[in-house]
Amino acid sequence: MKPKNPNFAEDVEKSFAAQRVMNLIGASLTLVEAGAVDITLPYREDLTQQNRFIHAGIITTIADSACGYAAYSMMPADSAVLSVEFKINLLKPAIGEAFTAKGRVIRAGKTLTVAHCDVFANKGLESEVIAVMQATIMRLEKR
Amino acid sequence: MKPKNPNFAEDVEKSFAAQRVMNLIGASLTLVEAGAVDITLPYREDLTQQNRFIHAGIITTIADSACGYAAYSMMPADSAVLSVEFKINLLKPAIGEAFTAKGRVIRAGKTLTVAHCDVFANKGLESEVIAVMQATIMRLEKR
Amino acid sequence: MKPKNPNFAEDVEKSFAAQRVMNLIGASLTLVEAGAVDITLPYREDLTQQNRFIHAGIITTIADSACGYAAYSMMPADSAVLSVEFKINLLKPAIGEAFTAKGRVIRAGKTLTVAHCDVFANKGLESEVIAVMQATIMRLEKR
Amino acid sequence: MKPKNPNFAEDVEKSFAAQRVMNLIGASLTLVEAGAVDITLPYREDLTQQNRFIHAGIITTIADSACGYAAYSMMPADSAVLSVEFKINLLKPAIGEAFTAKGRVIRAGKTLTVAHCDVFANKGLESEVIAVMQATIMRLEKR
Repeated sequence: MKPKNPNFAEDVEKSFAAQRVMNLIGASLTLVEAGAVDITLPYREDLTQQNRFIHAGIITTIADSACGYAAYSMMPADSAVLSVEFKINLLKPAIGEAFTAKGRVIRAGKTLTVAHCDVFANKGLESEVIAVMQATIMRLEKR
Repeated sequence: MKPKNPNFAEDVEKSFAAQRVMNLIGASLTLVEAGAVDITLPYREDLTQQNRFIHAGIITTIADSACGYAAYSMMPADSAVLSVEFKINLLKPAIGEAFTAKGRVIRAGKTLTVAHCDVFANKGLESEVIAVMQATIMRLEKR
Repeated sequence: MKPKNPNFAEDVEKSFAAQRVMNLIGASLTLVEAGAVDITLPYREDLTQQNRFIHAGIITTIADSACGYAAYSMMPADSAVLSVEFKINLLKPAIGEAFTAKGRVIRAGKTLTVAHCDVFANKGLESEVIAVMQATIMRLEKR
Repeated sequence: MKPKNPNFAEDVEKSFAAQRVMNLIGASLTLVEAGAVDITLPYREDLTQQNRFIHAGIITTIADSACGYAAYSMMPADSAVLSVEFKINLLKPAIGEAFTAKGRVIRAGKTLTVAHCDVFANKGLESEVIAVMQATIMRLEKR
């Protein structure tokens, strides 16, 4: 993937830092490449649903941002990024020490980008896919 | 809609109270009827993305639980409820004083339930739909 | 819903007539209003899957066009319409004498429109929802 | 992927042969492995929408069956297979000499299976992805 914005990594980091919810839940950027962004979230009890699994909406929060920033990394400078829609399948309970959402661009269009995200749960030395997302992201001119 | 579990309202409330993430984000149950559950979330800056809109993942968190509990309300006693998958379209920026996710059962099957959710933003006396979700929920025997 | 194109009904009918697959499967337009389009398909054995239900892809074919034309009816003249993505839940086996896909616009934006579709199966005097679709449609300038 | 049914390939072929719609549109099975099924469809004018691209619903028809049979290949003998729901993104116009839907199992559960499908368009010696699907498939006991 060939980025159009030479400062894409810095721009992704700056925007991510402005997502206050990432600070609330304790998520951080762990990879920023052209068309590929990872976000990692350590397990915390206050993020759970009734069975002490991380809530599907919180898994979705990191998957959505990973897809959005993977898309953003391929956009021209002075773009703004917007989630149009996404669909996620929850494959296994979100249990583990940490979770990594790996957003990857499938197709970067002028207006719309389609991305895929695998979310992995890390348990000790093992890691398994617990959720898969398919997302549509829109580019807007930055105002 | 005719519930199979006479104590469905109490069971929904008990399970919701055990979702620790709802406490973290400040969401509360505002309607529990057979096949219909509302969850309301006041606006808070620490739930936002880079433009100060509520993050799509947090909107998804209340929509997913509204669908899940709407489905749960129609299940027999001693059921456990699991989100299989969902798809959400973000129609407008999540700005407003509060947000209400209205989960409604479309079809309650023995194993799978399909639900729809409109998420409204409340601004003063007005209210508008900002997101729509279509979700699949599974019933498990409670262990 | 207030249409921008005074000739929307004629334009929808003309485009539908150009969808050769509708002729192959035997589907016809049965309602064209601003933001609302119905497509009806009589049952035929050569449209079925292994259990003699209409194949999910054929139900999707009429639901996708119903959503697309509902969106198209709200677009300015000289627009072209494109399906970005859709998600469909199959609620019940597609058995019946005929099937009607009712596409309805949820939100008509400048570039993107979101639509919902219920697909009904008609059996004698009864009718029931067998599938629900949520779709994203894009407007392009007609070349 | 390790199949539970030693005759999975024969069972997939038998069920596919019973899908009468595949004969109508001219699609054929081109790969049957454990957890992986390809379906190929040559271009035909009578399968098109208003721009002479293959209709999204017909692309969906082969993608849905490819996912369903990929799932079926991993099920125990005496299973029946049912599409619960799917979501598809249309990435590029469906133009080409032929189209191949490659259904692949992501996770095979006891009741539910999640599959992914890439649909390729073949033009001369080149091939490109024109659509991606994420699908949920259910196992039933065969009656």
